[in-house]
Amino acid sequence: MSDPLIYRRILLTVDEDDNTSSERAFRYATTLARDYAVPMGICSVMESEDINIFDSLTPSKIQAKRHHVEDVVAEYVKMAEAEGVAHVEPLVYEGGDVDDVILDRVIPEFKPDLLVTGADTQFAHSKIAGAIGPRLARKAPISVIVVR
Amino acid sequence: MSDPLIYRRILLTVDEDDNTSSERAFRYATTLARDYAVPMGICSVMESEDINIFDSLTPSKIQAKRHHVEDVVAEYVKMAEAEGVAHVEPLVYEGGDVDDVILDRVIPEFKPDLLVTGADTQFAHSKIAGAIGPRLARKAPISVIVVR
Repeated sequence: MSDPLIYRRILLTVDEDDNTSSERAFRYATTLARDYAVPMGICSVMESEDINIFDSLTPSKIQAKRHHVEDVVAEYVKMAEAEGVAHVEPLVYEGGDVDDVILDRVIPEFKPDLLVTGADTQFAHSKIAGAIGPRLARKAPISVIVVR
Repeated sequence: MSDPLIYRRILLTVDEDDNTSSERAFRYATTLARDYAVPMGICSVMESEDINIFDSLTPSKIQAKRHHVEDVVAEYVKMAEAEGVAHVEPLVYEGGDVDDVILDRVIPEFKPDLLVTGADTQFAHSKIAGAIGPRLARKAPISVIVVR
């Protein structure tokens, strides 16, 4: 009980919207990663299957969207580095269901012990409506902070 | 985006069971409160109405349970102080529904900006089955961390 509990690998989810809770989630993840000098992954998920089926985009439009998500994540990485976080990794994924992608691929591959997400963070084109935070707080095998 | 985000008042929920996630939640809340020198409230809720109705306890048994919850919280307060947290407040509440008690009374009165709870934390005799963390992560007006 008397050992400090410090998270050693922080995973931040970001979406394309600049909502307040996403900004505060970024600020909290950055504060922790810098103050405790731990690595941080910045993750966004593009639901490529949905884009194909429901938006009927051409391959070049899908590619443009992919680049846009990569740019958004790269921008966050740059900001985190500017805030003094030494190790920041961009994590851009595609797949059929954002929750499954995070639970089955992002977490096992990046191996975070804390997931930081804004209360209003949700990925564009997601099949599942609503913010990802409370769902992942229930389903993830690691600690989850929902930032407001 | 470049301001650090530091929580200024931390609310930890504890239950009577010594499960791993409650212990880790205590360790995380204590680490934050000490490292950032912020006050911490330690809260437990007794669903007194349920105890009356479903357990058919005598007033003296209810009183014994009340004292037990107070003792559990006091023990956590003592441990937090021993870990170097300067301001720790015991918060023992009674009411009909744990979620409502936390949302409508504990949070407005203690005014935390972060709620820390174990993934398996649940109060004894609660009408609502299951851990309080993921529910409060969805419903609370403040940031919530569910610790595993």
